Formats: sequence, structure tokens, C-alpha cells
Amino acid sequence: MLLEAGLKVGGVAYRTIWVESDGRSIGIIDQTKLPHAFQTVTLKRVQDAEHAIRDMLVRGAPLIGAAGAYGMCLAAISDPSDSALDEAYRLLAAARPTAINLRWALDLMRDALRNQPPAERVGIAYRRAGEICEQDIAINAAIGEHGVKLIEVAASAKPAGEPVNILTHCNAGWLATVDWGTATAPIYRAHAQGLAVHVWVDETRPRNQGASLTAWELKNHGVAHTVIADNAGGHLMQHGKVDLCIVGTDRTTATGDVANKIGTYLKALSARDNGVPFYVALPSPSVDWTLDDGVRQIPIEERAGAEVSHVTGQTADGRLATVRVVPAGSPTANYAFDVTPARLISGLITERGVAAASRTGLAALFPEKAGSAVSHS
Amino acid sequence: MLLEAGLKVGGVAYRTIWVESDGRSIGIIDQTKLPHAFQTVTLKRVQDAEHAIRDMLVRGAPLIGAAGAYGMCLAAISDPSDSALDEAYRLLAAARPTAINLRWALDLMRDALRNQPPAERVGIAYRRAGEICEQDIAINAAIGEHGVKLIEVAASAKPAGEPVNILTHCNAGWLATVDWGTATAPIYRAHAQGLAVHVWVDETRPRNQGASLTAWELKNHGVAHTVIADNAGGHLMQHGKVDLCIVGTDRTTATGDVANKIGTYLKALSARDNGVPFYVALPSPSVDWTLDDGVRQIPIEERAGAEVSHVTGQTADGRLATVRVVPAGSPTANYAFDVTPARLISGLITERGVAAASRTGLAALFPEKAGSAVSHS
Repeated sequence: MLLEAGLKVGGVAYRTIWVESDGRSIGIIDQTKLPHAFQTVTLKRVQDAEHAIRDMLVRGAPLIGAAGAYGMCLAAISDPSDSALDEAYRLLAAARPTAINLRWALDLMRDALRNQPPAERVGIAYRRAGEICEQDIAINAAIGEHGVKLIEVAASAKPAGEPVNILTHCNAGWLATVDWGTATAPIYRAHAQGLAVHVWVDETRPRNQGASLTAWELKNHGVAHTVIADNAGGHLMQHGKVDLCIVGTDRTTATGDVANKIGTYLKALSARDNGVPFYVALPSPSVDWTLDDGVRQIPIEERAGAEVSHVTGQTADGRLATVRVVPAGSPTANYAFDVTPARLISGLITERGVAAASRTGLAALFPEKAGSAVSHS
Repeated sequence: MLLEAGLKVGGVAYRTIWVESDGRSIGIIDQTKLPHAFQTVTLKRVQDAEHAIRDMLVRGAPLIGAAGAYGMCLAAISDPSDSALDEAYRLLAAARPTAINLRWALDLMRDALRNQPPAERVGIAYRRAGEICEQDIAINAAIGEHGVKLIEVAASAKPAGEPVNILTHCNAGWLATVDWGTATAPIYRAHAQGLAVHVWVDETRPRNQGASLTAWELKNHGVAHTVIADNAGGHLMQHGKVDLCIVGTDRTTATGDVANKIGTYLKALSARDNGVPFYVALPSPSVDWTLDDGVRQIPIEERAGAEVSHVTGQTADGRLATVRVVPAGSPTANYAFDVTPARLISGLITERGVAAASRTGLAALFPEKAGSAVSHS
């Protein structure tokens, strides 16, 4: 089956990151403006890329990796020396400390550039960054292919014509990757195949990536969906209104523990309590093969408390406005991720197939990775 | 120990509902304006009371009951006939269908007024409504007395001086009752006794009662607290940062299943998964002795989708503004409550002591109620 790629925005198919017509500048969508405005931004210096990653103009593990790779390209343009590239690596790596994909992409870029003549480094960098993007697209398309079978199984257990209800959290969507998305790839694939799906979209406080990004994607693509408060998923599962959950991951241990957007763990608990399958779409670059225990070992980013105390949205007259929802003087805390233990996960949808969430399950699909890692435990 | 009552607002102690100086009009705090503005509203007709309940100017099971009772007083002023009072009963009962306290208070009022000479009904109504308020205060004070022992137990297991970390959801607080609150009564009591407590306040989307009401209360009263996204509680519990949970309830079955604000169930699951005690503060009027199975039998109110798609808060220049956070054209769903099964609840803190969340546990404390109810199952 031929499946059309690219995010449709006003009828034009986009990727989420691209090289501009000058062959050097990098184009991105400013995702902080979604869903109310579609604005592209041009990155010209490594600092622009660092800012885009840190301030979440680009977000989502695979897209952060791609943005990091192109950040190294921009760094090489201004100074291709080893010391300048090392400095760029450090700058970019620190922009989102939890994002394993970022370090992975930066390592690939450093390996590609090291020991190359400085004069050739710019060209090499753009080729390697382009390959990283193509690899992400291939991975996500494969996740879609394997994941859609789980949706087909759910559909076969339902009366004909009733949509399969899929709950997702945050945005492991088209906008989080170079194309297709991870958690959304099976959904878009099902939609393309004419399988009826309906997506429960968790709002995903405090940054509202579900309400603002996943809903926007699905709406543009014509996929049936309903936005709900993060609090609602347990009730829906208790009443048989969720057939399966599919979420993404920012970092997964070799044992199958998954760090994903804060609140994912609560949905996994509810899924187990109600017998709802809970799947994680897992591009293998987001596995950290050196980790064994997600809760103990994965550092959890703490972000600014203002993300909790303030909400940004669109006023009735079309302006963006930020409003305070917590009384002045009340402290806030903002943990960006939580860890869902492998025991709560029905399966990991990887580009090589669906693995059990366990060391054995992952090792069976990725023997070359599982064998070579040095465990921290 | 003498414990001071009343919510301090600008140094003045308030109840949440009172009879104005004309002896007839009813004063309330417009809780939809909190935490950014403190405004009182005067109710003069039963329709005002109905509006205040339906649009959540007053909210919280016990306060809704008190407002319903005073609504019957206002109805009796304009027409004390049986038919008019029956009509007022129906009007008020329909304003919040899930709120068992509302029906309970309306039933007490109807029983008090029935067969009384119409000319005496106004006086009788105000006396009975006043008793309902005093009873609520007495119940909450007793819940505080029993609940504080649980906090003392948690404190004794911690290094001296470290605060007991209590997670709460929604606002089962001072503002939800006539005085003291239910889930907050043990907290205010602990604070009054000089026991160090720190409260994790769930934001409580979609209406943000935690962020806007519980935080406001605690801040005014000087209780240490931190507002978090609803998604964060699981992570905090995984990392030992929650010593116990105390939430409220809108309706509890005779078997100890608890309907409370949407999302409560997810916190209870997380508490069980992490060995954190999970308590429900339960004034006995919110028990529905005729129900056995909360998930199957308690009707769950669905509210307007705009509560999910829009957020109201204060702009930097001090105005209230409402912003859209979901793309136009994306549907929303808004279930107001969920049910936490008794098996996830460590105990029910009632005005007569802490009961096991079970038919036996509740019947032991309330034998006169448990025996007389006709089961629906």
C-alpha cells in the first residue's frame, strides 16, 4: 500500500524540519504557536538551534535529535574546528538533558565529523543530518506498519463499524518526529487503510501538547478525536470506552521501563486495572541500553513553575494571551516526565516489531545493541 | 484545644454561606472569581440559589447542600404553598444531579416544612437551614479530629522537623463546606496543633479547583503547599514525596466506593502501587446507603466541553480573561467525576472515626443507617 507522507497544512505537505533553499539555513515550525497560528522559523546559527530545542519550538524526541544534528551543521558553517564542534555539542546536549535522542544524534554527528578535513566538514554534516532524518522517517513508517496490526486486532473484537478507541498522552505525533510520528504512526496508518479509529487526546498539562498539538494534527488529517482532561482516562477505561492506549517515550531502559511525559504512568496503572492494552511506540534510538531501572536511574527534568501557574491560549478576538491560574504567592512544581515500569506495559512497538517490555523482549529484537551495552547496575 | 473557626479573608473570619443582615437574603462567596478576586453575592430568590449551584458560584457537596437548604427558604418567602415548595425542590435538585448532599438537604427541608401551617414555614425553613449548617461544621470539626491522628502517625515515621507531605485533589476544602472543609479539616487541625505539613495541591483540570481554590485557602491560612499538574502525583509517589493522600467525596456507596472529582481514581491507583495510604474524608450525609457498586450505579455528570477547551485566569494587567487551548473544530468531552473502588481506599475518615472502606466498616460506625437502607442490587 502506498501511504502518502507529510503533514498537510493548508493542503501543502510538510516535514517538521527541512533545509531552506539556500542549502544551509534550517526551517522549522514554531510549535509553541500551535494550534492557533502556523509559523515557520529559520535557524541560521547553532545558538538558534539550541534556543529552538530549549524553548520547545521543536519538541519530541526524534525531532529534537534532528534539530540537534542540524545544529551541528550550523556550528560547522561558522567554525568547523574540533574545539568549536565540541563546544556546539555541549551547548546542544544541555538544551534538553532528558532527551536521549538528542545525545544519540549529536554522537552520530561527532563521529561523522571527527578526523575529517575541516574544509569538508560542512558538506559531511548536512549529508549525515539528512540521513538521520531519513532514518527517523523509515523507523516511524515501520512502527506504523507493526502497530496497525494491534489496532486491527482491537477492531476485530468490536462490532463492525464501531471505531477503535485509542487513548494517547502528550504528542508523540507527526510534529514530534520528522514525519509520521511514533505513537500516531499506527493511527495514521489505520486511517489510511480505512480502519475506523477515534482518538482520546489527553490535554497533557502543564504544556498542553495533547490539546494543542495532537488535536491539531488529527484535525488537519481528518482523524476522529476528542480532547479530554488528563484526569478523565481512568473513568473512560472503567466504562469500556478505551480499547487500547498508545503513547511515546523519551527514553527507555534496556529492561523496558519507559520515561515519557508526566502522567503517562497514571494511565498505565489505569490500563492495567481495567484490562486495557497499553503500548509504547518505541524508535530504538530512544533506548538507553546502559540503564536497568527507569525509576531509579532516569533523571527527570524539572521545568519552570510558570508552566503550571500560567496557561497560554487564544482569546475570543484571536490574540494569544497568557493567564495566571494559580494564586500569586502559591509555589508550583513542574516535573516534566515520569517513568512507567515495564510491568505495566503490554508491548513496545519498535521498527522491528512488537517486543515484550523486558530485557529479553528488547534483546530478541535488538541483539546487537543489547549485547554491547555496559550496564550501570 | 480551642481551634479558631472561619476562613480568614483580609483578616476577617468568614463562613462560606450566611444570612444577610435583612434576616432573609443569603450571602455567598462567588467562587468562580477566586483566586483572583474576592466577591460576595447576595441571593434573594430560589432562582438565584439554583443559578449559584448550577454555575458553581458555590460548589463542594456540603456547601451545595447548605445552599439548597437556603434556596428552599427563599422559595418559601415568595410562596410557601406545597406546590411551590415541590417545584423549588425539583428546580434545586436538578442543578447538580450527582450531588447526594443536595438531595439530602432538600429532603430535610421538605420534611421540616411539610404539614406545617404555610404562615410559619419561612421561620421554620431558616431555623432548619441554620441547623444544617451547624451540623456540617460539627461534622467537619470531627473529621479533623479523627483525621489529624493519621497525620500524627505519618509524622512519627519521619525525621523530626520534616513536614508530612499530603496530596489532595480538587477542593474538598473550607470553601467546599460551611466551615473547616472535609479533606482539609485534618490539615488545618494539624497546622493548628503545630504539626509541620506540606500539601501537594493537584491543579484539578478542567475547572482548576485545586489551583484556584485549595491553593488560595492554604495560602490565606499560611499552610505550606505546592501546586502541581494533575499528571505529577504518580511521579511524586514513586519517589517517596507523598506520605498520604486525603481527598473528599461527592457520593459514597454503602460498600465504600467513592465518587469524587474526575482523576481521583488515578491517584488512588498510584497510591496503591507505591504503598501510600489513601484516605477519603467522608461526612456521613454523602453516603448513599442504597448503592452497592459505585462504578455501575453512580451517574456521572457530563459538563460543558468548553470547560476543557477554554481556561480562565488573570492576565498580567489584572483582568480576567478566557483563552482557548484546544484548536477550534476539535471536539472535547468533560466527565466531572470518577469512581474510586473501595479496594483502593485505606480508610474513610468520618465524623464518628476512621472506617474501613467496606460495607462492614461503614455499618460498624453507622449501624442505624446501614440497617435501614434498601439496596438497589
